[in-house]
Amino acid sequence: MSHIKAQFITLEGVDGSGKSTQAKLLKEALEAEGHSVLLTREPGGSPGAEEIRSLVLEGEPDRWSAETEILLFTAARRDHLERTILPALAAGTIVICDRFVDSTRVYQGLTRGDLRDVVDKLHALMIGREADLTLLFDMDPKLGLARAKARQTTEERFEDMGLEMQLAMRQGFLALAKGAPERFAVIDAGRDIEAIAADTLAAVRVAL
Amino acid sequence: MSHIKAQFITLEGVDGSGKSTQAKLLKEALEAEGHSVLLTREPGGSPGAEEIRSLVLEGEPDRWSAETEILLFTAARRDHLERTILPALAAGTIVICDRFVDSTRVYQGLTRGDLRDVVDKLHALMIGREADLTLLFDMDPKLGLARAKARQTTEERFEDMGLEMQLAMRQGFLALAKGAPERFAVIDAGRDIEAIAADTLAAVRVAL
Repeated sequence: MSHIKAQFITLEGVDGSGKSTQAKLLKEALEAEGHSVLLTREPGGSPGAEEIRSLVLEGEPDRWSAETEILLFTAARRDHLERTILPALAAGTIVICDRFVDSTRVYQGLTRGDLRDVVDKLHALMIGREADLTLLFDMDPKLGLARAKARQTTEERFEDMGLEMQLAMRQGFLALAKGAPERFAVIDAGRDIEAIAADTLAAVRVAL
Repeated sequence: MSHIKAQFITLEGVDGSGKSTQAKLLKEALEAEGHSVLLTREPGGSPGAEEIRSLVLEGEPDRWSAETEILLFTAARRDHLERTILPALAAGTIVICDRFVDSTRVYQGLTRGDLRDVVDKLHALMIGREADLTLLFDMDPKLGLARAKARQTTEERFEDMGLEMQLAMRQGFLALAKGAPERFAVIDAGRDIEAIAADTLAAVRVAL
């Protein structure tokens, strides 16, 4: 069993980029090598965070302001971090997390650009942890949106954002990756599942 | 009708200090003079904030960490500010708020002193508003606790803190008042209701 330094791995990308599928395949591949692996996701990921998630996502779209929503999502993230992620890492388990703070950064950066700096400050103040490795599943959002619609499993609110928003999200993720190359690995997610899975595992190995 | 500059008035003090009674009397006195007055309270004060309040206060005491709890209370405060307080102030209504951020400052300062600075930074980042005038109803907590028990209306969790904690809370409030004399008026709340009400109204007039 090889030692994996990147214990906390986050997966990011636009809807339909296949990251949830890749998360499962990565978990299986690492477990096959004898690693203990925990797969989790945001928003949610712990009982408390799931309750906060329901509070945020249910009801009218304008039920919460962007500021209140950021605070609620950060509260959920703090709970998820404390109750799920950190205990697993402390036990030597590799944590694969489907979406983390980069999704918040990109989403808020597009919808409320004036809050982009607030998101970072809030993260630094109340979360204070970045992933060891972030896998960005990059693809043309046109393809991703078609995939997501076919599956019909995407959060409605995200799907409703439409193609233009997804195109901007893609650029937002790529800009984050460019700004933190030591943490990001960008994977071409516009190919078949096996090719993407091979690249994903290779990226995790590079981060050994 | 005299013009009142201190439009946003918060009431603070240990449990049983009579501030809720004084809040009602102050509202009546100001309304009798023709002012439009809104009485509200924390935690809660808007439909969204009430829901967050329920989420925080229900369930096991260790359900949320201090950090998550601070985030949730700040989310509730943001909602309360946006949906209740600021619209009222904008309409020229005087807002009397039973507990605000000073309660958080004192409570967290005592239970998790290491987070005292975080509370202030979070407030500056996400709320950014202090009261124009804060009335501190100061009294011996022994008297307040006896009053609160007689009424049985106090949040159980606060009452459960016991006398030692209430004594420390009193000192915490007095320290805050000393640090911001331009905002605080300290009122001796260990007297009869009428005497306290007269001092309360006088303090509001001084802030004209």
